[in-house]
Amino acid sequence: MSAQQVPATQPNPMQIFNTVQGHQRAFALKAAVDLDLFTAIGKGSHTVNEIGKACHASERGARILCDVLVVMEFLTKTGDEYALTSDSAFFLDSRSPAYMGRAFKFLMHPTQLAGFEQLGNAVRQGGSAGDGSLAPNDPIWVDFANGMAPLMVPAAQAMAGLLFEALHSRPSAKILDIAASHGLFGITVAQRLPKAHVYALDWANVLEVARENASKQGMADRYHLLPGSAFDVEYGSGYDAILITNLLHHFELADNEKILKKARAALNPGGQVIILEFVPNDDRVSPPGAAMFSLTMLGNTPHGDAYTLAEYAAMCRNAGLETPRQIPLTPMPQSLVVAQKAF
Amino acid sequence: MSAQQVPATQPNPMQIFNTVQGHQRAFALKAAVDLDLFTAIGKGSHTVNEIGKACHASERGARILCDVLVVMEFLTKTGDEYALTSDSAFFLDSRSPAYMGRAFKFLMHPTQLAGFEQLGNAVRQGGSAGDGSLAPNDPIWVDFANGMAPLMVPAAQAMAGLLFEALHSRPSAKILDIAASHGLFGITVAQRLPKAHVYALDWANVLEVARENASKQGMADRYHLLPGSAFDVEYGSGYDAILITNLLHHFELADNEKILKKARAALNPGGQVIILEFVPNDDRVSPPGAAMFSLTMLGNTPHGDAYTLAEYAAMCRNAGLETPRQIPLTPMPQSLVVAQKAF
Repeated sequence: MSAQQVPATQPNPMQIFNTVQGHQRAFALKAAVDLDLFTAIGKGSHTVNEIGKACHASERGARILCDVLVVMEFLTKTGDEYALTSDSAFFLDSRSPAYMGRAFKFLMHPTQLAGFEQLGNAVRQGGSAGDGSLAPNDPIWVDFANGMAPLMVPAAQAMAGLLFEALHSRPSAKILDIAASHGLFGITVAQRLPKAHVYALDWANVLEVARENASKQGMADRYHLLPGSAFDVEYGSGYDAILITNLLHHFELADNEKILKKARAALNPGGQVIILEFVPNDDRVSPPGAAMFSLTMLGNTPHGDAYTLAEYAAMCRNAGLETPRQIPLTPMPQSLVVAQKAF
Repeated sequence: MSAQQVPATQPNPMQIFNTVQGHQRAFALKAAVDLDLFTAIGKGSHTVNEIGKACHASERGARILCDVLVVMEFLTKTGDEYALTSDSAFFLDSRSPAYMGRAFKFLMHPTQLAGFEQLGNAVRQGGSAGDGSLAPNDPIWVDFANGMAPLMVPAAQAMAGLLFEALHSRPSAKILDIAASHGLFGITVAQRLPKAHVYALDWANVLEVARENASKQGMADRYHLLPGSAFDVEYGSGYDAILITNLLHHFELADNEKILKKARAALNPGGQVIILEFVPNDDRVSPPGAAMFSLTMLGNTPHGDAYTLAEYAAMCRNAGLETPRQIPLTPMPQSLVVAQKAF
C-alpha cells in the first residue's frame, strides 16, 4: 500500500481528555498514599471490603479508588481482588526501604501546585510571580529533605562510585555538599571513604535533617554544617570534591556561574564539581523526564530552567572549570554533570 | 529463554513521577489554550519569537511551554520551528469547527478541581462533600453548554441515525431531550427528522444556550423549553423518544430509576430511551476512559458513578423498560444505552 492510500488518522480527542484528567490522576495517587492503601494491600487486604476497613474508607470510595488505580497500572485486579504491582510494592508500600510516599508532601505541596494554576501568567511574564521557595529557611525544603532521599539513592551511589575511584588512595578527603538537604549524597560518599570529612551547606532548618541522618550513620565527627545560602556562605578551601545537587535549576545562568566560581576557588587543583541535574538534550524535548522539568521551573521560579549540557559546559568554562562530561542516571530523569578544576 | 531466566524488572519510579506531573501537564495544556497558542501556530507563527509575539508571551515562557507541548505530543518540533499535530489543528486551533478550547472552562473549572484536592476525604466518606454542582441553575452548566458541544457531535449523530431509522416514516415525531445543555442532541435529531418537535429540559439559564442554538438552525418553531429539574418537571406525554444525556452518572441507582420511570410513563408504546453515558465493562477497569470516569464522580458528587451495562439493565427493567443494548462510540469514551418501552 503506498503512502497515499493510507487513510488519514481519525481525529481523536482522547489525548486532550487524558491530559486534562492528569489532574485527577495525580490526586488519586496522592489520596491512595494518604490513606496508606498500598501498605494495606501489601499486608493482605485484597477485596474492597477488606481494603476499606484497613484504610478507614467507605466501600464506594475504596472501590472507585482501587479500580482507577488498576486503570492507572498501580494495582492489578483479578476477579474482585486487588494486588500490588512490583513497582507499587517497592515504592508505595510504607514498609519498603524505597518508600516514596513521603515525597508527596513535597511533590504535591500547595506551593508547588499553586504556581500551575497561574501558569498562563508565568508564560506571559516569563516566570512565576512566586519566589520559587528560595527565601531563607523556607520550610518546604524540610519536606523535601524528609521525603526525597529514597529517590536520590541511585544518584548518591553513582557519586560515591566516582569519588571512591578518584579519592580512595588519599588519607583524608574533604567534600563540600552544597544544598545537602537530607544529606544522602555526602553521607553515601563518606560511607565509601571512611576518613573523608563532609561539609554540608543548606538552610539551618534543613541541616537539622542532614545532621540527624549523618549521626544515624555514625559519622557525626566527620560531618560539619555550613548553614545559609550558597551565594553568601564562605565555603572554606581545600576541597577534593564539591557536590551541587538539585540547586542550579532554580537560577539563571549568571547566578549559577557565581556559585561555580565560588566552588572552583574552594577546590584543590584536580578537584571535581559533581552537579546533579535534569539535563535535556540540545533539542530541549528529549528525554521526556528531563525536558518536562523546565515546566516545573517555569511554574515555580522566576528564572529557573532545565539546562542542556552545552549550557552547563559554558557555565563551567566561564567559572574557570574544565569542560564537563554528562553521566545519565537512567531510568531516573537526572544526570550527573562532572567538571574538573585543572591541576 | 525460560520464564525463570528472564531478569526481574528494575524498579522504576517514573510512573509515579509522571502521574504526579499530570497536574502540571493539565495546566500546561490549559495555559496554551488560554494563550490561544495553537491558533497562533496554525496561523503561521513557528519560532519561539514569533509565537511569543503572537501570544503576548515572554520568550522564556513561550519556549518552555512549546517544548513541553512537544514532549506531550501536542506539537512537533523541527530545528527551531514548532508545528501543530493533526489532532491539535483539529481540536485546539480556535478557527476549527471542532475547537475544544471552550471546554476547558468546564473541564478545569475551579469547582471541578477543588473536589480532587480533598479526594482522600471523599474516599473516606464515600463521596464529595460538595453537591456535584446539582443545585438549581448552577452556572457551571452554562459553561458546559457553551464548551462541550463539539465533543458531543459523534454521539448526537449516532442518536440521529438511530432515530431516523425508527421514526422517519412518522408524520411528526415528538422528542424529549433531558439535560439538553447546548441542545446539540435534540437539534441534530430534528435536523434528520424535519417535522419532529423537540422538548428540551434543563435549568432555565442553560436552556437559553439551547434555545439560541436551535434558533440558529432555524427550528425555533419546533423547539420547546421545559425549565427545571428532571426529578420535578412534568415531562408531558406522547414522546417517541427520550434522550437522557450526561445526567444519570450524577445520581445513585434509586434516583436514576425515578427518572427512568417518569420517562417510561411519558413515552408512547414502542418508544425508545437513549441514554448517553460512560459505561465501563463489568470488571469496572476497562475500557480506560469509561472506567476512569467513576473518579470524576467520586471527586465531585455525593453518590454518582460510572455504571455498567448490567446496572443500566437493572435500572431500566425496574422502571418497566425492556433490557437495553449498548452502542459504544469509540474512540470517544462514552456509549449509548438504548432501551425500548414494550408495544
